[in-house]
Amino acid sequence: MGKFYSVGIGLGGGYITLAAKRALENADVIAVPAKSGKSTALSLIQDNVDISDKHIITLGFPMSRNTETREKARNSAVDTVAALLDTGKNTAMITLGDAAVYSTCSYVAKELAKRGYETETVSGVPSFCAAAARAGVSLCEGNETLAVVPAVNLDERFEEILDTFDNIVVMKAGKNLDKIYDMLEKRGLLGKAAAASNIGMNGEFVGKIPRGELGYFTTIIIKKGTP
Amino acid sequence: MGKFYSVGIGLGGGYITLAAKRALENADVIAVPAKSGKSTALSLIQDNVDISDKHIITLGFPMSRNTETREKARNSAVDTVAALLDTGKNTAMITLGDAAVYSTCSYVAKELAKRGYETETVSGVPSFCAAAARAGVSLCEGNETLAVVPAVNLDERFEEILDTFDNIVVMKAGKNLDKIYDMLEKRGLLGKAAAASNIGMNGEFVGKIPRGELGYFTTIIIKKGTP
Repeated sequence: MGKFYSVGIGLGGGYITLAAKRALENADVIAVPAKSGKSTALSLIQDNVDISDKHIITLGFPMSRNTETREKARNSAVDTVAALLDTGKNTAMITLGDAAVYSTCSYVAKELAKRGYETETVSGVPSFCAAAARAGVSLCEGNETLAVVPAVNLDERFEEILDTFDNIVVMKAGKNLDKIYDMLEKRGLLGKAAAASNIGMNGEFVGKIPRGELGYFTTIIIKKGTP
Repeated sequence: MGKFYSVGIGLGGGYITLAAKRALENADVIAVPAKSGKSTALSLIQDNVDISDKHIITLGFPMSRNTETREKARNSAVDTVAALLDTGKNTAMITLGDAAVYSTCSYVAKELAKRGYETETVSGVPSFCAAAARAGVSLCEGNETLAVVPAVNLDERFEEILDTFDNIVVMKAGKNLDKIYDMLEKRGLLGKAAAASNIGMNGEFVGKIPRGELGYFTTIIIKKGTP
């Protein structure tokens, strides 16, 4: 039976770790999650990993609000990878950032492990670390706390996090800039926040939080720091 | 003038990124933070980065409770690096994990930037991502929240975080295992927590939280998951 590797590639290019490069080069098949039919991840490894002899399989994960639709697609992806592993093919699934942080790999690996397949996770640089580096700020220092939240529920609970944590990272914030902007302005925190979008890709943006909208891969870093 | 690089090396070995390897190979001087006189970081890069022609400088950062002592040591470190940069030597300071997550590099880079030196941060894999990978769990999925807290103030505020976040990472938890154990037991969360210590180093431990003590580099991952 083949082995399954969940491989975090950071933002690709120089962010790829030596272990990720090795895992990808040793794999027979590279599996690419293709959200909405677009595959960013594959294009980000091609300059540093020779994939000329690899089989590439694109796994569809529709970003539906319907839980059943999502689960059906995920199970179908697991079945597909399992079939490849059954033929003895080592399969590496690549993911942007780290394979343990908001990654579809986690789900696939967990299901495959349940079915008795051997799995291994190869860590990568999470996008929020790359965002902090590009914005020239640290995420946490000394005894500070750090909260990482997706920009889905910017409700009272989020305001509480904003008020009680030293540093806050908001993931996938591109469509919620105005709401975050207002919350920060109210608290006098606009000067302590940075936005980073599409780092290392087309349309890269790093700077103060703008009004309006940015792309899907937008991270906001709010660095209140130690009181 | 030379340029200053803050380089996160993950846990060394295969965790080193291609960009980190390049930055270290292009540096004239490699600066190593030597807390309590021990340097773990340097030994972790030697198998993958040729440092035979590098000058190595060990910077002392005493882990004193005295703020003045710490600041004096930090300023002295900044002065020392600045002197090297003044002679045109590119200097790369290495740090375990990511250079933006609880790293002494952040402070040195910030001070050097204030003094007009060119600085760049090269991201690395944070230790908590490596810990999650080795423990075979994800840090966050879907719309879950993640809190990262150092094990210094395990007070009411920490209990609140424990009760309100989906996933919690406790850093440098080696001396506080019993306290964390009790808090988790009370909440029926022991089965959802893992400890990872000294990953990729001597005395590696990955498993359920034990009673007693583990080393300085101990991370606890509490994965409550989506309610």
